[in-house]
Amino acid sequence: MSLDLSADVVSLTAALVDIESVSRNEQEIADQVEWALQPLSHLEVSRHGNTIVARTNLGRAQRVVVAGHLDTVPVNDNWPSTLDGDMLRGLGTCDMKGGDAVILKLAATVTEPVHDVTYLLYEAEEIEAAFNGLYLLSQSRPDLLEADFAILMEPSDALVEAGCQGTLSVAVTTTGARAHAARSWRGENAIHKAGPILARLAEYVAREPVIDGLTYREGLNATGITGGVASNVIPDRCTVNVNHRFAPDRSPAEAEAFVREFFEGYDVEVLDVAPGARPGLDVPAAKAFVEAVGGQVNPKFGWTDVARFSALGVPAVNYGPGDPMFAHHKDEHVPVAQLVECERRLRAWLTGGDL
Amino acid sequence: MSLDLSADVVSLTAALVDIESVSRNEQEIADQVEWALQPLSHLEVSRHGNTIVARTNLGRAQRVVVAGHLDTVPVNDNWPSTLDGDMLRGLGTCDMKGGDAVILKLAATVTEPVHDVTYLLYEAEEIEAAFNGLYLLSQSRPDLLEADFAILMEPSDALVEAGCQGTLSVAVTTTGARAHAARSWRGENAIHKAGPILARLAEYVAREPVIDGLTYREGLNATGITGGVASNVIPDRCTVNVNHRFAPDRSPAEAEAFVREFFEGYDVEVLDVAPGARPGLDVPAAKAFVEAVGGQVNPKFGWTDVARFSALGVPAVNYGPGDPMFAHHKDEHVPVAQLVECERRLRAWLTGGDL
Repeated sequence: MSLDLSADVVSLTAALVDIESVSRNEQEIADQVEWALQPLSHLEVSRHGNTIVARTNLGRAQRVVVAGHLDTVPVNDNWPSTLDGDMLRGLGTCDMKGGDAVILKLAATVTEPVHDVTYLLYEAEEIEAAFNGLYLLSQSRPDLLEADFAILMEPSDALVEAGCQGTLSVAVTTTGARAHAARSWRGENAIHKAGPILARLAEYVAREPVIDGLTYREGLNATGITGGVASNVIPDRCTVNVNHRFAPDRSPAEAEAFVREFFEGYDVEVLDVAPGARPGLDVPAAKAFVEAVGGQVNPKFGWTDVARFSALGVPAVNYGPGDPMFAHHKDEHVPVAQLVECERRLRAWLTGGDL
Repeated sequence: MSLDLSADVVSLTAALVDIESVSRNEQEIADQVEWALQPLSHLEVSRHGNTIVARTNLGRAQRVVVAGHLDTVPVNDNWPSTLDGDMLRGLGTCDMKGGDAVILKLAATVTEPVHDVTYLLYEAEEIEAAFNGLYLLSQSRPDLLEADFAILMEPSDALVEAGCQGTLSVAVTTTGARAHAARSWRGENAIHKAGPILARLAEYVAREPVIDGLTYREGLNATGITGGVASNVIPDRCTVNVNHRFAPDRSPAEAEAFVREFFEGYDVEVLDVAPGARPGLDVPAAKAFVEAVGGQVNPKFGWTDVARFSALGVPAVNYGPGDPMFAHHKDEHVPVAQLVECERRLRAWLTGGDL
């Protein structure tokens, strides 16, 4: 069996879902995508690991990227796909083989787009960044990512979500002194000392900056807490893991400075940080795209690979079929209507035709 | 090799230490103790599992129990024993084969004590109560534990420690609602809600009741805290484990009521509870004992098996060689002088002789 790019977008989504491709197992789906695209004479196809790049080279004034990842989170009793009335259900229907199917349909059928297009179907988005196909390509062949604008077809309920917030994880630690619980006054309870950390967090008021007309709401939350030695020992250490989501008007360094000041007096260790991405809606290709898909734009709160494009100097938005609330969910599904809608609107944009 | 009860108390302690008897491995040491006591005609010896009971039956007005456990915590690179100047070092020297050696010396040599004596050397004190030799005997042969007074030779620096505090462990839990950390306002952070629990604990003021002339200082401490799902998820559950040490003027039910009121508004689950023991220093045998060993009495903060005697209606105190701070410690040791002192003072008390 091989992929049939002449099938409708719903059948093509189901076919992609039914090739199991949990992260690090993308060989077969990448093979199928490569074999389906290779014969198309209007595309220049190249393969990099399990990432496939297909480009038009029409000498257009602008180039756009349309990208989707081929991998999924692990199977959760939700594979293969089933069509259930107006919903296609199963692992990857929403995140994001519906988007991949739209990409493949456009790649196969829009032979003369108004912008040059780089279609990108990449591996390992759901796991550590070191395996991420987009990251690997940015290291090995950054020229292939050059563009004026990028669309990442992550599920966004078929609405444009622009930019993304940055994320910073820190460990805030208190220390004390152990003692037998029967003589607790000889020790110093590190868990009790974590109380004011939680009190500060409970009183946190989120900043809500407006950037390019979009309101971003930040967040500062304990996502984990650990402390304790044994039920008869006064604990000498307590660690609160805190995650900060920061709007794209702040750099990682500014976000870190904010968090350190917020927890002044405590030991703060940075565990992980990823920058946000500005919406970038002021570039002409982005404006035209937003208009073509209906004009409504929401801010993106979750971190996605649009930040990678942003870091490369390419404005990027999320736009894809499926409710993101059902990504990584056992009951993952995508509305058939959104698959059709996304294909129709992107086709109109790339062909300059009517909507 | 068999135990030589005519050896001095230091050599006998070393010999007991050198029979490895980590909990549930007391067969050999119990054999040795039984064989050493069996020939002594002034004692009635019986065995119950790996617990040995040896009783005088002289028809005295009062009966006293002198008890010690034969097991130790696991080996920690501190076995067998070494004599290091005026310290005997090694696993069990302090907790509590020094006390066991004193018991065996007295059992062997005090043939006509002024009170009838029940010597008790028992198994499995360091592990779950279900294996505890004293507990098992209280179920199978409670008659053998009948007495007017009991001395438990747990390490107490050769000073009388009377009574013991009760201990109550509870889990105090907060709940919330999960959400993606990028949209934290859609969730409810259970860890943040634990802040006031820790604040209450930090403000706790210990009750210090005076009981039979001894001041007991209570304690209420977080001994563990856990919460969190993943670094990108708002946590929906946080549990604080709290340990309460309560003075022996309160029952377990009263202690539980106090803790539930202290954490009013939170979900409180009782994990474990053990009653305390009143000092019981008003009974004549106890008074005479305290006088015989020097008159100084301290309150016992840690929970010990004296509470089991108390529950059986037998007043009990801790009195034994070794600093309890070194029990369960890699550098466990007992001062030779305390071994000698404990034997001398108990002998004087049991024989009515001069100190």
